[in-house]
Amino acid sequence: MKGTFHPMTISPQKALLVGVAVALLPAVAFAQDTATAEAATDAVEAAAPTFDQIGPYIMTTLLFLVGGFLVMWMAAGFAMLEAGLVRSKNVTTQLTKNVALFGIAGIMYWLIGYGIMYPGDDGWTIQGYLGNLFAPATLEPVGLSAADAALDYASTASDFFFQLMFCATTASIVSGTLAERIKLWPFLIFTVVLTGILYPIEASWQWGGGWLSEAGFYDFAGSTLVHAAGGFAALAGALVLGPRIGRFKDGRVFPMPGSNLALATLGTFILWLGWFGFNGGSQLAAGTVGDITDVGRIFANTNMAASAGAVAAMILTQLMYGKVDLTMLLNGALAGLVSITAGPLDPSLFGALLIGAIGGIIAVLVVPMLDKLKIDDVVGAIPVHLVAGFWGTMVVPFNSPDTSFVTQFIGFAAIGIFMFVVSLVVWLILKAVTGIRVSEEAEINGLDVSEMGMEAYPEFAKG
Amino acid sequence: MKGTFHPMTISPQKALLVGVAVALLPAVAFAQDTATAEAATDAVEAAAPTFDQIGPYIMTTLLFLVGGFLVMWMAAGFAMLEAGLVRSKNVTTQLTKNVALFGIAGIMYWLIGYGIMYPGDDGWTIQGYLGNLFAPATLEPVGLSAADAALDYASTASDFFFQLMFCATTASIVSGTLAERIKLWPFLIFTVVLTGILYPIEASWQWGGGWLSEAGFYDFAGSTLVHAAGGFAALAGALVLGPRIGRFKDGRVFPMPGSNLALATLGTFILWLGWFGFNGGSQLAAGTVGDITDVGRIFANTNMAASAGAVAAMILTQLMYGKVDLTMLLNGALAGLVSITAGPLDPSLFGALLIGAIGGIIAVLVVPMLDKLKIDDVVGAIPVHLVAGFWGTMVVPFNSPDTSFVTQFIGFAAIGIFMFVVSLVVWLILKAVTGIRVSEEAEINGLDVSEMGMEAYPEFAKG
Amino acid sequence: MKGTFHPMTISPQKALLVGVAVALLPAVAFAQDTATAEAATDAVEAAAPTFDQIGPYIMTTLLFLVGGFLVMWMAAGFAMLEAGLVRSKNVTTQLTKNVALFGIAGIMYWLIGYGIMYPGDDGWTIQGYLGNLFAPATLEPVGLSAADAALDYASTASDFFFQLMFCATTASIVSGTLAERIKLWPFLIFTVVLTGILYPIEASWQWGGGWLSEAGFYDFAGSTLVHAAGGFAALAGALVLGPRIGRFKDGRVFPMPGSNLALATLGTFILWLGWFGFNGGSQLAAGTVGDITDVGRIFANTNMAASAGAVAAMILTQLMYGKVDLTMLLNGALAGLVSITAGPLDPSLFGALLIGAIGGIIAVLVVPMLDKLKIDDVVGAIPVHLVAGFWGTMVVPFNSPDTSFVTQFIGFAAIGIFMFVVSLVVWLILKAVTGIRVSEEAEINGLDVSEMGMEAYPEFAKG
Repeated sequence: MKGTFHPMTISPQKALLVGVAVALLPAVAFAQDTATAEAATDAVEAAAPTFDQIGPYIMTTLLFLVGGFLVMWMAAGFAMLEAGLVRSKNVTTQLTKNVALFGIAGIMYWLIGYGIMYPGDDGWTIQGYLGNLFAPATLEPVGLSAADAALDYASTASDFFFQLMFCATTASIVSGTLAERIKLWPFLIFTVVLTGILYPIEASWQWGGGWLSEAGFYDFAGSTLVHAAGGFAALAGALVLGPRIGRFKDGRVFPMPGSNLALATLGTFILWLGWFGFNGGSQLAAGTVGDITDVGRIFANTNMAASAGAVAAMILTQLMYGKVDLTMLLNGALAGLVSITAGPLDPSLFGALLIGAIGGIIAVLVVPMLDKLKIDDVVGAIPVHLVAGFWGTMVVPFNSPDTSFVTQFIGFAAIGIFMFVVSLVVWLILKAVTGIRVSEEAEINGLDVSEMGMEAYPEFAKG
Repeated sequence: MKGTFHPMTISPQKALLVGVAVALLPAVAFAQDTATAEAATDAVEAAAPTFDQIGPYIMTTLLFLVGGFLVMWMAAGFAMLEAGLVRSKNVTTQLTKNVALFGIAGIMYWLIGYGIMYPGDDGWTIQGYLGNLFAPATLEPVGLSAADAALDYASTASDFFFQLMFCATTASIVSGTLAERIKLWPFLIFTVVLTGILYPIEASWQWGGGWLSEAGFYDFAGSTLVHAAGGFAALAGALVLGPRIGRFKDGRVFPMPGSNLALATLGTFILWLGWFGFNGGSQLAAGTVGDITDVGRIFANTNMAASAGAVAAMILTQLMYGKVDLTMLLNGALAGLVSITAGPLDPSLFGALLIGAIGGIIAVLVVPMLDKLKIDDVVGAIPVHLVAGFWGTMVVPFNSPDTSFVTQFIGFAAIGIFMFVVSLVVWLILKAVTGIRVSEEAEINGLDVSEMGMEAYPEFAKG
Repeated sequence: MKGTFHPMTISPQKALLVGVAVALLPAVAFAQDTATAEAATDAVEAAAPTFDQIGPYIMTTLLFLVGGFLVMWMAAGFAMLEAGLVRSKNVTTQLTKNVALFGIAGIMYWLIGYGIMYPGDDGWTIQGYLGNLFAPATLEPVGLSAADAALDYASTASDFFFQLMFCATTASIVSGTLAERIKLWPFLIFTVVLTGILYPIEASWQWGGGWLSEAGFYDFAGSTLVHAAGGFAALAGALVLGPRIGRFKDGRVFPMPGSNLALATLGTFILWLGWFGFNGGSQLAAGTVGDITDVGRIFANTNMAASAGAVAAMILTQLMYGKVDLTMLLNGALAGLVSITAGPLDPSLFGALLIGAIGGIIAVLVVPMLDKLKIDDVVGAIPVHLVAGFWGTMVVPFNSPDTSFVTQFIGFAAIGIFMFVVSLVVWLILKAVTGIRVSEEAEINGLDVSEMGMEAYPEFAKG
């Protein structure tokens, strides 16, 4: 290993870093001791189970893995959507935020988030409200035996992988709204808090078996828990941060067109694709006729809602503005997807069409309202994720008779208030401590030059 | 909900739209009544089936869902390919068409298409020729029991989802050929007809158990039914529409290079990836050793044909022009894929190599022929989808002994004539009623400014 | 068929090519004879097997197909990453190389590679060192019966498909390092040798059951066999080729920023996604509780290593340079992925974090070292794939007790020396015979104009 690092060419600064890295090595060895020991124990096992016994476990684990990689892919979708919708002078910064937030989510959700979200019965928790803060996620041992597996569910690792992606998605929603003026590191610190603590707490209220779940709230794949929650965090940030320079002036609204609509469209298609994993995987089971058939229903309904949202937004912009607006078409599709996410299983295809179409209409109508309120949401994440998320959550009882409008509203309001207030506090603390907004000069020159020192398209002349 | 819509800030025009939306709400509730009722009945059910009984159903449903999302992803591939091959002044329009056509396909195939394509024995049909026009697709009830499932096939929803994507693909093929000069809305109206009626009719002749299927025609995944069919619709449109201004002048051909070959390459890779779902999913079964093994054969052959098409086109352009032509390399890969699509199962890998290589050669050779005929096909969809589709259809009997050249030719000709003639009529009607071509000024300035009022790359200077 | 080719419009040159193509037709028929005959035999078969007997075969075959298409997608990732990191004047060339190398790999691995890598006991081989050079890959017959299937493994076709993608990945690694100055065809000839012979030979030493496997070397998914091997081939090429003009001058290093960081980021996300197939599929089994659970562990660890690599590289560039460097962030994620690839199963999540983080740190630290050595690696493939591959290989014994540092080092060194020396010889032969470097003028003007005659972004003005 020595030769590879070429220590003779390392500066003192670098040598220090390598030293730290090497010092951490024994921890690697330690880190796997327990698992290996357990695996050894499990190896002492007897009769092979029949496929009838293990088939559902295998299929559900597979559902989580396939669903999980599809939702992971949504991180790329947000990155492309946002990179396409910001101006070219801020593209490198926006890309950096999207890659970094996904990396941070991967670490924080392991370190704290998963333990908060699924507290189990042990450790320090306030049952139903706050999970275990000190329980990093652990995987089952290598070569798990059927006797030790939760045969009625799926592998822990696959569940962790799948759930992690929802946490990361919540963070992705925030980055778009705050683009083009927020400092990099304060945004990343907020992401640490969001993915490690805020999302896991509110998600545990429902998906961790907490008080909202007890109360009968219904949010199949996260119209509220993921999309509106991310939207509320973004809204709080937008209020603290203020609009971009020149966005609202003398009572007028100045649009700031995205620099690359091909990327924005690509991002939307990526999100559309990933959403099959997002909603389909949330069936949480695939090993019976009923479950796999339901996953099929969810795929079909999800696609229908997106289609209807896109077409409705297209027709509406034609009627309202006399021209089809591509960015509205994209946001319409996404709003359709957010709208169906609270209940993608129960509606008929026609129901999904109506839900998605209204979602698409909402996206188009809310954008000018935000402008009137002088809230500057660069990519339209608040209309798409927060407002359409509200619509999707409230329409559930039409299709799922065991739910109630009151409970749906309580759930949405509780999560909305929690996310908005706590996010606001975090943003205000960050503002006080580090500042969250770049200087006026930096904003005008673009964050890529001022914050990153690296342009995304250095060779292309500005027109 | 009231608070979210901020009704006090809604203009009369918007209020009307919200009103319409709200008025539709009861329909959502109605739309799911039946399914829920059925589900309740199904819940009264007895002994759990063994995995031996349900395994094939689960695996085939999974095949449709995975295959379906891969084919859905092809919509993004066409969007990127076409956005990369048009000039920058038409990129927004091309992106809009690709997203919109996919949304329209999702609605029309549900509303009419699926009922036409798989008529069953009920309703108003002309057996084998024309399915049921008035039978929107419906999904099975939530939580389907094994007793009510088609255990020898797959879930209806997954089948609908998978088949829908083929319908959308057919529409994607058309959009590229007609780029840079067609009006947005007439194109979308054609898409409504194509995805709702034209594709489902001809596809039902074979895949719906119609007369071509009875006659022994063989088209495994749609060299003719999807690719050539889309190509014929595009050809009819190109003839009615005429070439772009300046494309053919004084007996000479003026190439109009694509504006972004990175996007075009990305689009090709996306299509290549999606094609594994396109061809592999068309096995329509994955729950036996023979079936899953066949899916594996199809994957391997599909990849081989694409590889051979790419390499053959590359070598040929080097020989013919003294330089490798990237756009021909991409079209060679796609032509290889189209060629193997009629019969991806039966050939050996060497057979797939030959089929794909000749497909790639066809793509390269046909492009200048179209130029001689002054048919302006912006992305080369006619060589790639129509002509290579013909080749793929006709080569089937070499590998699949139960098929005949005559029947293959009849099938191709029947579908080709039907699609070409009916498409021609539709295009001519559209031309007469709304006009289908933008004004000369609009074409020269670019459709993005004239039709959409939104540039795809507003900040980049023209060089 | 005659009408379609329009023979009356074909020039003599084209007619010759069509003639050759048609002459090959009988070979297509021949090529599938054997398979069909065998299939007929298999059809005569008796009692249906239970799902208990065939479930594992089906699941593992599915693992290979899904894993394989994910790894195939990595080819697009490399293409986008490299297209984004080269200057705009070389983008078309870089795209061409990436599509062409994938096509070549698909052909060469079938023709020679697979036979070399998995020699079996027949044919001309030197057991454990060199497989069968004259055994093109063949697929099992159509409609394989359970009685004839390797029920303890998976379908041959799916295995071939999956393994092919690893071969192609090795070639993708090489293309980035040598960008912006290498001639197209010599690069492609090297790819022929690499994918047909070099990779299969060294991979057979381990995965084909050869001498390294016998010696106890451990490389789960190819930190050494794929990534370092590709890195050594690239290093040899970089040494023979020399740095780009102006890269190192008067003892100073001149960075040449990538032209499109959005594409580079997209490419990184694609690779990140594809890596789940790369590592997860390498479990080579998915039909038991232990196996599918292990695949889940691998997914979770792979994502953690990538996250940690990204975050570590980000923090380190902030500390070292006072700014976050997006390209280092991307390379950090990739280095994290390469690092975990030798052993993604055994570590805990915390172990994966440490492995990935150190990988990310390596990527950042090695880049300036290469600069000092005046080795010009355009995309950083040597730090990411070779050096992090070394780290990943050597860290294995910390987590997998049955392995030893000595054997790991021997394996890495053996493959490294083999790949470096043989690649060096091939590059030197190519240099002597055809030349491998474009002229100075061509390099300055860009390879797109000089080699390809086609710009990637012809309409965008240079800034």
